[in-house]
Amino acid sequence: MRILFLALTLLLPGLTLAQKPKKTATPAPDKDKQTAIASLDSRFSDYAGISKQIWDFAELGYMEEKSSALLQEQLRKEGFTVSAGVAGIPTAFVATYGTGKPVIGILGEYDALPGLATEAKPDFTPIAGQKGGHGCGHNLFGTASMAAAVEVKNWLKASGRPGTVKIYGCPAEEGGSGKVYMVREGLFNDTDVVLHWHPGSQNGADAGTSLANKNAKFRFRGIAAHAAASPERGRSALDGVEAMNYMVNMMREHVPSDTRIHYVITKGGDAPNVVPAFAEVYYYARHKDREVLQSVWKRIENAAEGAAKGTGTKVEWEVLGGVYNILPNVSLAEVMHQNLKLVGGVTYTADETAFAEKISQTFGEGQKVPITNAALVKDFRDQSDSPTSGGSTDVGDVSWAVPTVGLQTATWVPGSSAHSWQSTAASGMSIGQKGMMVAAKTLTCTALDLYKNPALIEKARAEWLQKRGADFKYEALLGDRKPALDYRK
Amino acid sequence: MRILFLALTLLLPGLTLAQKPKKTATPAPDKDKQTAIASLDSRFSDYAGISKQIWDFAELGYMEEKSSALLQEQLRKEGFTVSAGVAGIPTAFVATYGTGKPVIGILGEYDALPGLATEAKPDFTPIAGQKGGHGCGHNLFGTASMAAAVEVKNWLKASGRPGTVKIYGCPAEEGGSGKVYMVREGLFNDTDVVLHWHPGSQNGADAGTSLANKNAKFRFRGIAAHAAASPERGRSALDGVEAMNYMVNMMREHVPSDTRIHYVITKGGDAPNVVPAFAEVYYYARHKDREVLQSVWKRIENAAEGAAKGTGTKVEWEVLGGVYNILPNVSLAEVMHQNLKLVGGVTYTADETAFAEKISQTFGEGQKVPITNAALVKDFRDQSDSPTSGGSTDVGDVSWAVPTVGLQTATWVPGSSAHSWQSTAASGMSIGQKGMMVAAKTLTCTALDLYKNPALIEKARAEWLQKRGADFKYEALLGDRKPALDYRK
Amino acid sequence: MRILFLALTLLLPGLTLAQKPKKTATPAPDKDKQTAIASLDSRFSDYAGISKQIWDFAELGYMEEKSSALLQEQLRKEGFTVSAGVAGIPTAFVATYGTGKPVIGILGEYDALPGLATEAKPDFTPIAGQKGGHGCGHNLFGTASMAAAVEVKNWLKASGRPGTVKIYGCPAEEGGSGKVYMVREGLFNDTDVVLHWHPGSQNGADAGTSLANKNAKFRFRGIAAHAAASPERGRSALDGVEAMNYMVNMMREHVPSDTRIHYVITKGGDAPNVVPAFAEVYYYARHKDREVLQSVWKRIENAAEGAAKGTGTKVEWEVLGGVYNILPNVSLAEVMHQNLKLVGGVTYTADETAFAEKISQTFGEGQKVPITNAALVKDFRDQSDSPTSGGSTDVGDVSWAVPTVGLQTATWVPGSSAHSWQSTAASGMSIGQKGMMVAAKTLTCTALDLYKNPALIEKARAEWLQKRGADFKYEALLGDRKPALDYRK
Amino acid sequence: MRILFLALTLLLPGLTLAQKPKKTATPAPDKDKQTAIASLDSRFSDYAGISKQIWDFAELGYMEEKSSALLQEQLRKEGFTVSAGVAGIPTAFVATYGTGKPVIGILGEYDALPGLATEAKPDFTPIAGQKGGHGCGHNLFGTASMAAAVEVKNWLKASGRPGTVKIYGCPAEEGGSGKVYMVREGLFNDTDVVLHWHPGSQNGADAGTSLANKNAKFRFRGIAAHAAASPERGRSALDGVEAMNYMVNMMREHVPSDTRIHYVITKGGDAPNVVPAFAEVYYYARHKDREVLQSVWKRIENAAEGAAKGTGTKVEWEVLGGVYNILPNVSLAEVMHQNLKLVGGVTYTADETAFAEKISQTFGEGQKVPITNAALVKDFRDQSDSPTSGGSTDVGDVSWAVPTVGLQTATWVPGSSAHSWQSTAASGMSIGQKGMMVAAKTLTCTALDLYKNPALIEKARAEWLQKRGADFKYEALLGDRKPALDYRK
Repeated sequence: MRILFLALTLLLPGLTLAQKPKKTATPAPDKDKQTAIASLDSRFSDYAGISKQIWDFAELGYMEEKSSALLQEQLRKEGFTVSAGVAGIPTAFVATYGTGKPVIGILGEYDALPGLATEAKPDFTPIAGQKGGHGCGHNLFGTASMAAAVEVKNWLKASGRPGTVKIYGCPAEEGGSGKVYMVREGLFNDTDVVLHWHPGSQNGADAGTSLANKNAKFRFRGIAAHAAASPERGRSALDGVEAMNYMVNMMREHVPSDTRIHYVITKGGDAPNVVPAFAEVYYYARHKDREVLQSVWKRIENAAEGAAKGTGTKVEWEVLGGVYNILPNVSLAEVMHQNLKLVGGVTYTADETAFAEKISQTFGEGQKVPITNAALVKDFRDQSDSPTSGGSTDVGDVSWAVPTVGLQTATWVPGSSAHSWQSTAASGMSIGQKGMMVAAKTLTCTALDLYKNPALIEKARAEWLQKRGADFKYEALLGDRKPALDYRK
Repeated sequence: MRILFLALTLLLPGLTLAQKPKKTATPAPDKDKQTAIASLDSRFSDYAGISKQIWDFAELGYMEEKSSALLQEQLRKEGFTVSAGVAGIPTAFVATYGTGKPVIGILGEYDALPGLATEAKPDFTPIAGQKGGHGCGHNLFGTASMAAAVEVKNWLKASGRPGTVKIYGCPAEEGGSGKVYMVREGLFNDTDVVLHWHPGSQNGADAGTSLANKNAKFRFRGIAAHAAASPERGRSALDGVEAMNYMVNMMREHVPSDTRIHYVITKGGDAPNVVPAFAEVYYYARHKDREVLQSVWKRIENAAEGAAKGTGTKVEWEVLGGVYNILPNVSLAEVMHQNLKLVGGVTYTADETAFAEKISQTFGEGQKVPITNAALVKDFRDQSDSPTSGGSTDVGDVSWAVPTVGLQTATWVPGSSAHSWQSTAASGMSIGQKGMMVAAKTLTCTALDLYKNPALIEKARAEWLQKRGADFKYEALLGDRKPALDYRK
Repeated sequence: MRILFLALTLLLPGLTLAQKPKKTATPAPDKDKQTAIASLDSRFSDYAGISKQIWDFAELGYMEEKSSALLQEQLRKEGFTVSAGVAGIPTAFVATYGTGKPVIGILGEYDALPGLATEAKPDFTPIAGQKGGHGCGHNLFGTASMAAAVEVKNWLKASGRPGTVKIYGCPAEEGGSGKVYMVREGLFNDTDVVLHWHPGSQNGADAGTSLANKNAKFRFRGIAAHAAASPERGRSALDGVEAMNYMVNMMREHVPSDTRIHYVITKGGDAPNVVPAFAEVYYYARHKDREVLQSVWKRIENAAEGAAKGTGTKVEWEVLGGVYNILPNVSLAEVMHQNLKLVGGVTYTADETAFAEKISQTFGEGQKVPITNAALVKDFRDQSDSPTSGGSTDVGDVSWAVPTVGLQTATWVPGSSAHSWQSTAASGMSIGQKGMMVAAKTLTCTALDLYKNPALIEKARAEWLQKRGADFKYEALLGDRKPALDYRK
Repeated sequence: MRILFLALTLLLPGLTLAQKPKKTATPAPDKDKQTAIASLDSRFSDYAGISKQIWDFAELGYMEEKSSALLQEQLRKEGFTVSAGVAGIPTAFVATYGTGKPVIGILGEYDALPGLATEAKPDFTPIAGQKGGHGCGHNLFGTASMAAAVEVKNWLKASGRPGTVKIYGCPAEEGGSGKVYMVREGLFNDTDVVLHWHPGSQNGADAGTSLANKNAKFRFRGIAAHAAASPERGRSALDGVEAMNYMVNMMREHVPSDTRIHYVITKGGDAPNVVPAFAEVYYYARHKDREVLQSVWKRIENAAEGAAKGTGTKVEWEVLGGVYNILPNVSLAEVMHQNLKLVGGVTYTADETAFAEKISQTFGEGQKVPITNAALVKDFRDQSDSPTSGGSTDVGDVSWAVPTVGLQTATWVPGSSAHSWQSTAASGMSIGQKGMMVAAKTLTCTALDLYKNPALIEKARAEWLQKRGADFKYEALLGDRKPALDYRK
């Protein structure tokens, strides 16, 4: 999840000790949860190993072949039925166990980020020749979700209860909008509730949201000419890009203040002595309300077309990504929060403390927080209406297709930013692996609550229907384009 | 004529004494010319008086009611048939005398310029409350042309020769493109040659050209909104203007180097706290080749439309003026030049010298030239292919409708710029009036040569047909719009 | 007050009947208040007449000679000591009555707006030849404040209590920042509390705020040249303006979202054929936090200087206005609100209802509200931390110099915008005059509470000191410039 | 030489058969020239082989290690004294033979262009994995110059005359300004005349010029920030680039029309969700007058600094190249032209004709010319004052240090553009090699004339001194920077 949880870290520093709840005492875990937690603890080294394998694979979006295969292999061994290559994406899968209602889904991610290959050490040690790195901890993400699904399966099997668990193998979260294609394909249509989590630098289960996001590369084409000998014969594609940018910059005054628009010029010509026949600019636009976003986006497209007309160039654009804002579900978030408190945070060994301290020393002053925060759980807050952190995620689309709830756990040294070498390093060693297990346990316990208490699901669904609105009809922000399978190539 | 002769002054300082021709001896005037010159001399004070009356009227473009009426009255008195209000312009007229071929036309102008009301004194003395001033000497222009027409009539009458003389009363040269409507109306269709002249600060009859020019006001309309309370509801018309300008500025690299494009923002919003619902920018584009100009103009229009699209505004434009480049006629220019040499320049009295010296002292160093230059006549040069001065005139359109030739005379103190208080002052006293008589005499003598030597007309026509090209079809650059009769209101 | 109360109207439509308070019963007025209210009622026609005279004067900012003199004359008659021409402003005054503490100030305004001269009729009837109109109802503002001061004097005199009342005659609120010079001069240093009010289209006494505002004209100077003949010799001042605007438009992405920056081009060149030697752009910047505003402003200045450097022009700027945000005082607002409820709103006669209905029919759909709202008083709300309406006022500076509280009353037909012909019309007839008396009564009663209960003043001061901050040091946003006495000329 | 000769091809298509001179009969070669020409013919296959080796090396600017070594080796073998690594450039050299005056220099180049690796076949056949290609024929350039130097040496030796020949090994002509450093080092101080040539698609020895050129990368640095979460903390380096570009685009109106300014954005940010902390734009400016160029360049720098100031960024720039315009020497050009006529053009075999026809079929309509033009020699024209082709070359600096003259020969199929796959292919086979020998012969014969007729040198020097001006003092346009040895890495 891009930047979202990092920003939550910065915005919501209020933390309480898990064992000192402010308002309500955390109930002791029931027997089923005790069993599940114990089972997960017993398999710690297995799961740590799997997460480390994926960390080593460090495969970029839509190229997660080994990572996806490894997770599928585990799930098949545990008795899941696996549909691979769903939604036109070779590395996406859905693994199912059980029959009948309710159907609980769990999301798993496993793509790495370009340019963050670092060893799992507390000082910056780049790995030469390796393209990607797990700076967002998706190696932990996929593994914990798989672990939780397995534990839910164990309970379903042991209890003999009706119910189905599905784990969604979701590629290319980082800029690839992988889940959007899966939502568009209808893969969530029969699912009652979706659970997810995300690596982070603290433990919390707020009902938060994210920004809807649409992005595209605008490609201008002009006419090349020798820029000194016959510039009058040329039409500069770069002129088109700059004119578009100019009009978008003026537009900033005339959009809602909390809109976000940002761009980089990804191709600005080759050599100065040739009028550029091709130029490209990459735009993101975001707003917490996807309808506002769509109207702003239409105006950005108008700026592109106006720029082409005014500069004698041609333009076309490819929407590369588009995700909804997260529709928060407070009913589910409260359940998740209770289970997170029950599970508790991450306590470091002496070695881990040394590692964490060394990492922490690399932070700037404003970024430093006590590393013992990893053991805490944040108070619950309903963030549904608050200004968001600025981040976006393709979990957004899932949350409009099915009631969805998530948490984050302290897989990184408190104070770490997502997409940093520090988070990459921690994701590859025991600190990350311990945080991952907090997530696996909390997801499992939450699922158990939902299976055992259908009223919770009904309440969540009622809230979801009300928030989504009666007339809601899903249309992917990225339209009907095929998955951009080569966006990282 | 806007700026043209000023620039010629600066570019072509080479002057010779009229009495010292470099190559060919000037022949003595024949009897007819002697008679005409003597007649004009005898009526100096009448014509000086008429030019002074028009100087006092100082009527702006398309509002030259008294000036036009005064000239028409003179012409009727002299036996001309006057068609007034031609081409849909109340102050335009054509006055005709004689029958049969050849038909010689003479152009006359009489509009003043806004903001140049100055007394006819050698120091700057603004006339409070008067809107216009004759800073381009059109009071002299109209009077001399009328005087020449009268003298041609006298000769036609006395000689009994066949032939017709037409004087064209041409309003609104200064930005109004008056002659374009007259050309469009076909008023020059039966005329064989057109003569014109222009006040200036030296005497010369080069075969020069001018820039084709097209101009328009682009009016953008947006949506007003309180700029602090709800800027997102507004669409700034000024954004439209600035985006258009931006794209035109980038376009400068991609037009022929000798294109000229310039603009001012004539309306840029009212109060900063209101998003401007209206904004206006006034563009001129020029090139020596009107076809290049038209293709550049189309791109300027595209920039306007692209800007409107890209800023969520609407745009429309009104073409206010559009003139062709002058098609120079070397055959005719040589005839005109011979007659100018025969007539000679302007010699000052002691009082005029004092006036001129005082004026000259107000010039910057680079601008000063000997005031005795007023007595000289420039050597002839064929400037047809040279880079032009940057000026434009609606005589351009006439020159594509009929072979056309002109001269300038030293009606202003040498060194004076057109459109200055100095040229305004000189145009209202004897220096201007003497220069005017040089023009009247030269125009008359040139006309006499043409009536008496039809081969000259044939040669001029052959040159003209060749230069104009076989496929030429006149289309006014300002299209089919009606005269902008209120452009000075 | 520019736009502020209009926007409050739109943002806070919740109204309750004054006689149906939600939470607390309004106490009956005490004897002193009864006496004051009765006295004001008895002088209704006097005050209505004075407000009508000022409405007829319709004098623009810093030219309110007759209006100021009329108010001063009344105050002298009532025994006030008047200091006229304070703070370097001929039409500013301070009128004082009484001795000792506490010192209660009341603000009065009386400047008209350009371009809003309309008759006091329910259909749009412009008054030809009249420059200004009271579209913001300052004719009522000054009169009611004067009336309240007189009534306070009556009570001070009758009760024999210590205490001083000061009425501040404040010119040029509309864009002239008049009060800023008065604050800078120290005229509020010995005052304990300041009361003010503003005409509006509803009755309310919220603790609201406003935006700090700084504005200036940026004047660029280049080098004129003939734009066709020698553009390379010119340096376009308009280029400077457009480059500045461009950089400011890009800056919008990099300032806090709730900043407001808006501009109009007040001079964009004269004629297209001359490279503009002068161009001017008028900027406003606003933010609720004046320190953020100052840092943004510095960057706007940098954009101006950068633009001048980059375009070969020169720039200088004149800060025309600069006002602080209002520092709201909840303690005082609660007292004011109680008194407003006690006084009640405006009830229309049949004629007034007919007038109001006719006015209301001229409103767009979104703007219409029941005209009976004029009889209501809004519930109290603490708006201190809310996003503001987007408006700015020079009361802001007063509120940082002394604890300040205000109200608005329904002087205009409900739904009216400030600065409209509808508000101008109502300000000139009985509806406006009745609303004015609601203000006069509420101001008087509030003052009486404060004189009689010093603890209220202490509480207000404590709140004020806390909100202002320990290190606060007043520096006018417009620096040390002299009053721009000719800004409306 | 960048684009120069290509453009000459397009601009000056007038060709005459060498055997049909318009004005003067070409004298028969004297005995010395006959000997030299015969000697060169006899060594055709040696020189062809050397040029092919360099074609195969295809080494980019400042990395021409093998190419430079191969030429040096030949020269040493022939008895030249070689100074290698001159002017701080490892691949530059000066090879000298003989003693005493006059000293004739010959320039040789041998750098390849990036991205043009194509096989020597008449259809486009890229060579995978090869970085560069000889699309400007510098493999021929260096070889022919070396061959000429050797032949001059043979003559000096045989004749026993005093005199020195120097061959300058000049790296990195393509964008590296290699000769500028050699001029700056004073390597031409003792040389009397410099001869050069360039591959082309026709044979000619006009006295032409080129544009002075200065170029630099402007690097802006801002502050990174998450573009959605906290854009207000960021300062976009890309804003700096775009603001600079905007001001330069406006500047186009206000520089001499024949100035050329062009840019590409070489770095426009990384990811849209990060405010770019770094951005880079690469500018070229050119004018035929290097002083005009310098004043325009200063304004470009001002635009950069103004943009940085206005956008809150920092900027610095690195001048990568800077060359003077060529100072044409008509006296020398006439001598060169006579010798070129004497040598004659290139006649194709049947195989070469087939190759040429196949190449010619790949040209667009406007580009095609008769392939038999390769056998022709263009009439001589003095192009000193003409508008130039738009190209620039570091020969310019040499021509201000010493009287310099050049020619081009038809090494490429007539109609070919420089820097094309077609010119690359021809440079690697017999057509290019034959054209190269035309150059070697003409250079040799011209040198022989100069050695034998000192008056020619005196006349050339007089013309050169007069054109250069009395006050001339050389200052490299690229200042005192060290050679940009890594500009191609």
